[in-house]
Amino acid sequence: MTTLILVAHPQLADSTSQQFFKASLPPEASIVWEHLDAQENFDVAQEQAQLRQADRIILQFPLYWYAAPASLKAWEDTVLTRSFVYGDHRYPLADKELGVVVTTGMPAKAFQRGGAEGLTLDASLAPLAAVAQRAHIRWLPTFAVHQFGYLTETQKLQLVVDYQRYLTQPQPDSLTNRQAWFAQRLEQMVAKLPADQQATGRLIATTFDQSRADLDQLADTLAMIKETEDD
Amino acid sequence: MTTLILVAHPQLADSTSQQFFKASLPPEASIVWEHLDAQENFDVAQEQAQLRQADRIILQFPLYWYAAPASLKAWEDTVLTRSFVYGDHRYPLADKELGVVVTTGMPAKAFQRGGAEGLTLDASLAPLAAVAQRAHIRWLPTFAVHQFGYLTETQKLQLVVDYQRYLTQPQPDSLTNRQAWFAQRLEQMVAKLPADQQATGRLIATTFDQSRADLDQLADTLAMIKETEDD
Repeated sequence: MTTLILVAHPQLADSTSQQFFKASLPPEASIVWEHLDAQENFDVAQEQAQLRQADRIILQFPLYWYAAPASLKAWEDTVLTRSFVYGDHRYPLADKELGVVVTTGMPAKAFQRGGAEGLTLDASLAPLAAVAQRAHIRWLPTFAVHQFGYLTETQKLQLVVDYQRYLTQPQPDSLTNRQAWFAQRLEQMVAKLPADQQATGRLIATTFDQSRADLDQLADTLAMIKETEDD
Repeated sequence: MTTLILVAHPQLADSTSQQFFKASLPPEASIVWEHLDAQENFDVAQEQAQLRQADRIILQFPLYWYAAPASLKAWEDTVLTRSFVYGDHRYPLADKELGVVVTTGMPAKAFQRGGAEGLTLDASLAPLAAVAQRAHIRWLPTFAVHQFGYLTETQKLQLVVDYQRYLTQPQPDSLTNRQAWFAQRLEQMVAKLPADQQATGRLIATTFDQSRADLDQLADTLAMIKETEDD
């Protein structure tokens, strides 16, 4: 799977959250990373080719005034020509996935009616979601990071894993898909271990696989119990 | 009343609708007109001073991908600093009016659930409306022009008047405010007539005033009838 990350941020070097995301990219994955603000003019043909080649498109930005920074809109206005997106009823981006990684300076609770921001994230992103719908792209649940600066070290470690999964894990974000993703990551890690630690690594992987099997059984049992319950 | 018109359009000279709007500006009114795309970098202090001086702010643009062109977002991101808009709980833009003049290539019916665009204009403009709310600015009903190119000459004549009223007529857009606006315009026109036509002009103005009085009476009667009706 190829993931295309389009980052819109006018001062990328000064952004601790964006630098954090960049350092958190999964090294083994097939990822194309682009900073939109760095382009003087967009090479439309190249940008469109990049979109065609991607399986998952990630739009990554801080929320400024209930929307992405101007550079993302400039990219939309220039690269997403109508003929490309839905001309002649051809949809070259159909069934690709679109994810949004959005950072906000305000806490999550601000984004509701009566909250300090007064508008939900979903409502803020509705214009983007409408573009996805027009292109027949699948819209993924939003990856929102509120007040990055206040996260603890533990929360940041969790964020690395969640971010990597958002970039590369097959959708939907189910237990099965999550387990498969972790198993694959473990395998890659074990393969990189020095020869004398390979045996230990394989033992961990086997234990993990056994746990997955146990979890699958538990999930089946749980599903059976739920089926016999009333609403 | 001072009206500030901020136009966002990447190819203004090629836009027949924008050229039409520009030619339709009411000559007697106090209007500041600015083309945002013409600015290389925004003079933040000057833009903010302009906003402070305006009573009504008009954002005028074609709808590109369910939002304004990138130049308007660049203006927002640069000029609307947080400290200016709501810093220290001071709201320098409070109680000003914000109107949106938006042109679309698709007909009105496309902007609904199930329509070709699938998103309402209100939902498309929700991020802008949230900015207005944050700044304690009064949001005016949107002035939307769909498929300008297909308008008849009669519709265009009507559009000139409606547009001028949107720029300068006191809100709300009630019968009373509309009549007062027309009466004022008539007065200005009569004043400009050659001396030998002044008498005729004054006669028209008097007749118009009489019609207004009649209409006021009719409106009162109608209100009384409505009050006695059930829901």
